[in-house]
Amino acid sequence: MSPIRRLVPLADEAKRKGKRVYHLNIGQPDIPTPREYLEGIRDARVEVLAYSPFQGLPEAIEAFRAYYAEYGLELSPEEILVTTGGSEAVLFALKVVCDPGDQVIVPEPFYPNYNGFARLSEVEIVPLTTSREEGFHLPPREEVERLITPRTKGILFSNPGNPTGAVYREEELSMLGELALRHDLFLIADEVYREFVYVGEHRSILSFPELRDHAIMVDSISKRLSACGARVGAIVSRNREVMAAIRRCAMARLSPPTLEQLGLVAFMAHPRHRQVLKGMVEEYRRRREVLAEGLSQVPGVTFQPPEGAFYMMLGLPVDDSEGFVRWMLTDFPGEETVMLAPGEGFYRTPGLGHDEARIAYVLNEWDLRRACQLLKEGLELYQEVAPKAPV
Amino acid sequence: MSPIRRLVPLADEAKRKGKRVYHLNIGQPDIPTPREYLEGIRDARVEVLAYSPFQGLPEAIEAFRAYYAEYGLELSPEEILVTTGGSEAVLFALKVVCDPGDQVIVPEPFYPNYNGFARLSEVEIVPLTTSREEGFHLPPREEVERLITPRTKGILFSNPGNPTGAVYREEELSMLGELALRHDLFLIADEVYREFVYVGEHRSILSFPELRDHAIMVDSISKRLSACGARVGAIVSRNREVMAAIRRCAMARLSPPTLEQLGLVAFMAHPRHRQVLKGMVEEYRRRREVLAEGLSQVPGVTFQPPEGAFYMMLGLPVDDSEGFVRWMLTDFPGEETVMLAPGEGFYRTPGLGHDEARIAYVLNEWDLRRACQLLKEGLELYQEVAPKAPV
Repeated sequence: MSPIRRLVPLADEAKRKGKRVYHLNIGQPDIPTPREYLEGIRDARVEVLAYSPFQGLPEAIEAFRAYYAEYGLELSPEEILVTTGGSEAVLFALKVVCDPGDQVIVPEPFYPNYNGFARLSEVEIVPLTTSREEGFHLPPREEVERLITPRTKGILFSNPGNPTGAVYREEELSMLGELALRHDLFLIADEVYREFVYVGEHRSILSFPELRDHAIMVDSISKRLSACGARVGAIVSRNREVMAAIRRCAMARLSPPTLEQLGLVAFMAHPRHRQVLKGMVEEYRRRREVLAEGLSQVPGVTFQPPEGAFYMMLGLPVDDSEGFVRWMLTDFPGEETVMLAPGEGFYRTPGLGHDEARIAYVLNEWDLRRACQLLKEGLELYQEVAPKAPV
Repeated sequence: MSPIRRLVPLADEAKRKGKRVYHLNIGQPDIPTPREYLEGIRDARVEVLAYSPFQGLPEAIEAFRAYYAEYGLELSPEEILVTTGGSEAVLFALKVVCDPGDQVIVPEPFYPNYNGFARLSEVEIVPLTTSREEGFHLPPREEVERLITPRTKGILFSNPGNPTGAVYREEELSMLGELALRHDLFLIADEVYREFVYVGEHRSILSFPELRDHAIMVDSISKRLSACGARVGAIVSRNREVMAAIRRCAMARLSPPTLEQLGLVAFMAHPRHRQVLKGMVEEYRRRREVLAEGLSQVPGVTFQPPEGAFYMMLGLPVDDSEGFVRWMLTDFPGEETVMLAPGEGFYRTPGLGHDEARIAYVLNEWDLRRACQLLKEGLELYQEVAPKAPV
């Protein structure tokens, strides 16, 4: 069981006792879903709520195509398949790239749900450790190449990164690309946080012409439209065999939800859609600043302001972050507390992450400030009173 | 490639040439989705379209619970998990019941998508042949038992049956139950057509107390609410270990779509919901009668009026039903034609189904009458002019 699953009941218990819990541990944004999207659903003229084609509605594929074109990515409709959220896209990618028992390399810390997708596909995740000190950027090529075995079929990464906030530089992606070509690996790039870039520029894996047969991109509207419950994502590749195999996976599950695709169609047809997306990013940019400022006043925590997404991995002055998070829920005095995601759950390599926690900046600025204050008080008290973690 | 996938482009081509094609080949009903459901979605007060819990929204679980209670099935919330359509429920069931390489017995003819789910789960389908003459009811116990091997983990069946229309009698289900208990197999009952019963009575697999640890029920709102595009289904079992394993599968994919769960909540809270469901069934009952009457006037076709669901397997006076269906799309003269689903795609055993086709009565009464007329003319002409199929 992941640390966070062990802790959720404690948070529920704290709330039952009347405590307010600031949840910095979850990836569910609080920002309202744009009305241009929700009205698109409400106004959809649907008499029979029918299956969409298994590839997605043609107009939804077109909406994705138009969106990628705004980023200079020219794609044909056959290169895009609408999925039931980004989750299904990752699952399809692993299914198509690997046979059971195969391996994918994943830079750690990584999105813990990759473990679930790998388990469902019976694929082994081989972690490539990255560090807070390096801003979670990729290590030199040799360190990546060393992990490649005859069973390695691909490299799966999120960029911008959850939980790291790292936005890979062009040379990092080129390095992965060279390895992919040399060892015939697929690069599966989870780019659902594409919009959320605060430092530098995001390069899509699809923008490297030499990788046309090796790149698979995973996408979702969940984050950029604050619509996690829509369950609309996409898988995109220029490799025809890959897309044919993905279509075979997709046929079996019939179709992604219809109304939420229509919402996307309406949203992308709306003249203000780019402004709405930008507004969303600006909101996170402000929060990121508030958070960086608030955290800079917490003695002992270490972090680099994230380049993208809406997470950061925080170094904590404790040697058992799960114990600290638990203590904040069960023993921290007062009427409010804060919940973080212990770092351990984001690593595959045993022993890593015990002095880290992930923060998701999915609260408004006021709440973020208050959460930082509580974290500061909590850490101070914990270091005084809490029992030392067993060595 | 399944026969139907080979034929769809021909139907598209016929339509491009201006021909009207009566589609009796698909399972997508034409009946409007009840406004009590669609308005439930439109009126949902959603500010942030957030993930639902992976098990489904508590109120959606309650809506399923209330629905089953109307059928005398008393279930606790932990025994119900909301899925992304019935498809995902079948997939989860296979995943949980089988390891790769295991077998499930499936009465044939069966819903062809079971092949896709089995492929995704690397499970082998062992067909149990049933016949049109017996109304596709189950053969004697010995014939089922003969198929059980050490690798058999379950028996998967749809009841009421797609494509057969068979509604299993209590003694048939008891027979399966005895085998399940004796050989420690799971019974996976796909009951998505529960509402659609015209002859006899439907018994849910969950109504057999002795099977509490062996029964898994698959459900969906797609058919009873004519809402295939909603992607809301459920998997239900009283076996705690099974439900725990299903929860692990479900966590990985995050959540089923939120709005369509809210639609169901509103629908079940509506005082007229039972009437609406009944009205839906009455519509299909009338169509079934129209179709039975229309088909009785087509020389050479054989069928038994189906007991449930909205399909029937038709015996055709041809020895290559795929060839006939193709000919109807490419060569049948006139401005209208009819498309059936060739029987072969519903069988696993090679050589079966070549003189059969599935009809879905998803058209209005007038169109059904016209389709029967076209079928009659088509068969007459085909038998005169069409080349004999190669032996």
